[in-house]
Amino acid sequence: MSKELAKKVVDKMMAEDKFSQWLGIETVLIEQGHCILKMKIREEMINGFGSSHGGVAFSFADSALAFASNSQGRLSVALECSISFAIAVKEGDELTCEARELSLTNKTGTYHIEISNQKNEKVAFFKGTVYRTSKEWFPENK
Amino acid sequence: MSKELAKKVVDKMMAEDKFSQWLGIETVLIEQGHCILKMKIREEMINGFGSSHGGVAFSFADSALAFASNSQGRLSVALECSISFAIAVKEGDELTCEARELSLTNKTGTYHIEISNQKNEKVAFFKGTVYRTSKEWFPENK
Amino acid sequence: MSKELAKKVVDKMMAEDKFSQWLGIETVLIEQGHCILKMKIREEMINGFGSSHGGVAFSFADSALAFASNSQGRLSVALECSISFAIAVKEGDELTCEARELSLTNKTGTYHIEISNQKNEKVAFFKGTVYRTSKEWFPENK
Amino acid sequence: MSKELAKKVVDKMMAEDKFSQWLGIETVLIEQGHCILKMKIREEMINGFGSSHGGVAFSFADSALAFASNSQGRLSVALECSISFAIAVKEGDELTCEARELSLTNKTGTYHIEISNQKNEKVAFFKGTVYRTSKEWFPENK
Repeated sequence: MSKELAKKVVDKMMAEDKFSQWLGIETVLIEQGHCILKMKIREEMINGFGSSHGGVAFSFADSALAFASNSQGRLSVALECSISFAIAVKEGDELTCEARELSLTNKTGTYHIEISNQKNEKVAFFKGTVYRTSKEWFPENK
Repeated sequence: MSKELAKKVVDKMMAEDKFSQWLGIETVLIEQGHCILKMKIREEMINGFGSSHGGVAFSFADSALAFASNSQGRLSVALECSISFAIAVKEGDELTCEARELSLTNKTGTYHIEISNQKNEKVAFFKGTVYRTSKEWFPENK
Repeated sequence: MSKELAKKVVDKMMAEDKFSQWLGIETVLIEQGHCILKMKIREEMINGFGSSHGGVAFSFADSALAFASNSQGRLSVALECSISFAIAVKEGDELTCEARELSLTNKTGTYHIEISNQKNEKVAFFKGTVYRTSKEWFPENK
Repeated sequence: MSKELAKKVVDKMMAEDKFSQWLGIETVLIEQGHCILKMKIREEMINGFGSSHGGVAFSFADSALAFASNSQGRLSVALECSISFAIAVKEGDELTCEARELSLTNKTGTYHIEISNQKNEKVAFFKGTVYRTSKEWFPENK
């Protein structure tokens, strides 16, 4: 039941999330407080060094943060995020992103997110904290 | 002379930077270690809450970090960035971003970046650290 | 009146704050959302490299975060903080720390804090976000 | 052999690290890129809220960062660290801290560090990036 709710929340978010759609983000796994996503780096995502713009990896992880935290059932918004860039990402790279919940209290949640490329190399590490509002995504399912 | 070099580096970066072009980033001011940029939030940048995706504000600041740090003349890449989200950004908002240099050593540089909306409200705060490679953008101008 | 309240809150906090006392932190200026503190690096604060331990600079900034945010009148606790180390700090250095408020909403506040040494060199940069509880320090003064 | 070198580096660091000694940090496990430490919260570490000062948890994690990264054999210094505070720490709490290596390149290393209390609750999450100098701790052992 909770896994179903998690999926229902993320389906609703993704349907409206035009930027995640533009990025080409696909959901691989959605559970409460946990998700795996994938996307592919296109030419439009490249920066002035010929690599993927740092904002693309951040955006990918930020979507994972939103899905993992909101899938707990309450509308949750990012307060503060940090990202460490380890390896350059190139056009054509196929990225996977996994969010896992470090902590969840009544007001906040903290998540650790790792992004890997198709060679299974870790390319970036993200830590994000959300504020959990009191608004339920599906009050009737509570 | 240094201000000219700064502008020359950023012009070269922007010409290749397809993602900053997609975002619609325009340069307002470019100086060594300092820049002001602007952009407008479009429908494609909206997330599942009907606000601008957090990755869009991050990407805007990350471009400012790249321009401010590389305009010191040496190819510089982001190592670690953090962003605090203060106020939601909406479709149609016109954002301004200013990067100022906090510190510059031989190997690293640290920058504080603020993003404001058209009402002059601060919407996000970004801190980023770059690694400065030994590669000059224009060795002949050194 | 608000400046008096700010000072009253910080005096109460400092009286209980044994770790800030151990660090030898002194208040130079206290205003709502703003403070300047000073401290001196002692032998006990040195790490395995013969420099001041990074945790000492962090602790100094974290006290400034607590004082600047709580001086707004409501009990506020740190959620997430980041620090960038620019220049090594040595035994005998006299440090000054200034916290300024970047944003204040009903639930959260974000602060930028800089630490300088006696030569007026910036040694570290700190960004911190607090959660503002509903508890007033002095309900009668509200 | 590498595990021995790791231990030799940390023993040398700890012998000089007066602040880690003051904190009462003990090493439980030292391996290249990995360590487990413990410490106990004393009265002198308490802040103005009657909890352990945030700088104490940060310092504990920062020592773990230093030990885990330097145990790779080269002198490494912290560039940028962030910490998320999940649960308040109290006087008498017995903390354990584990650092694991997320990435290691020629110039930088990134580490994820978690701090737990005696009830095995996670109290804080830390991410830190170091700059790896070219200086070997024990050139003869290379």
